[in-house]
Amino acid sequence: MVKRTRLDDSDCPVARSVDAIGDWWSLLIVRDAFDGSRRFGDFRRSLGVAKNILAARLRTLVEGGVLESVPASDGGSHREYVLTPMGRDLFPVIVALRQWGEAHFFDPGEPRSEMLDARGRPPRALEVRAVDGGALGPEDVVVRKVGRPEEPSR
Amino acid sequence: MVKRTRLDDSDCPVARSVDAIGDWWSLLIVRDAFDGSRRFGDFRRSLGVAKNILAARLRTLVEGGVLESVPASDGGSHREYVLTPMGRDLFPVIVALRQWGEAHFFDPGEPRSEMLDARGRPPRALEVRAVDGGALGPEDVVVRKVGRPEEPSR
Repeated sequence: MVKRTRLDDSDCPVARSVDAIGDWWSLLIVRDAFDGSRRFGDFRRSLGVAKNILAARLRTLVEGGVLESVPASDGGSHREYVLTPMGRDLFPVIVALRQWGEAHFFDPGEPRSEMLDARGRPPRALEVRAVDGGALGPEDVVVRKVGRPEEPSR
Repeated sequence: MVKRTRLDDSDCPVARSVDAIGDWWSLLIVRDAFDGSRRFGDFRRSLGVAKNILAARLRTLVEGGVLESVPASDGGSHREYVLTPMGRDLFPVIVALRQWGEAHFFDPGEPRSEMLDARGRPPRALEVRAVDGGALGPEDVVVRKVGRPEEPSR
């Protein structure tokens, strides 16, 4: 793995999120958990990664509080992995990534998976909105530190 | 780097998004670009990674169409990196990750960066909604393949 700066003490919430998830493709484990995967073998078949690597990523997600390891739902001796409430809160992240992928990486008519609600329709495109409901784009926001003294103005 | 399954021909839009971004922390390059970083040195100071690694990640993002390499804005000889329209479409992904991090990884009052609109307020929490505006949770949607024959029903 690439050595990188530790991010779990960053003051940026994006960085802490990235750190908690661990590897980029660990988000695909989360995706599979949303789609009903519970057993190690389910994740392995879906992702096609080596057992030891998958085991390590699952462990990171459990330690990070995203997944929980629970007894088998059929009473068997194996463990299963389910999303914690915190893991379920990643739903907008997964949907945002899905919508970005749909918009940019598929030719018209190309086979792809689709997320549908009970009426058979995909969710609305996620939009960043102000408290009063107005649309916000990247130019409409600034990022600044809080909890620290401001630079004195002249 | 961990060997992984190639994802760019996956039929899952989430997987293609993950593949295009490359490394998980490459999303922090995207975050910095949203926050105004343009020069190699800006990204390097912010991220604290080795030059060769940062250069490789920037190259991946340029090749993937997320960033564009442009002449220096001050007329200097260096290149700068700006988000393409496709890269700008990652705004909801960045906001979703920020909000997840804010909700789960900070103690009350702990110093952190904050995203604020022109009126000094953070954006609304992103919500997944149906076309008719109703809230959608993970249980309210299914993911299925399109562009392929359905399993015959009995």
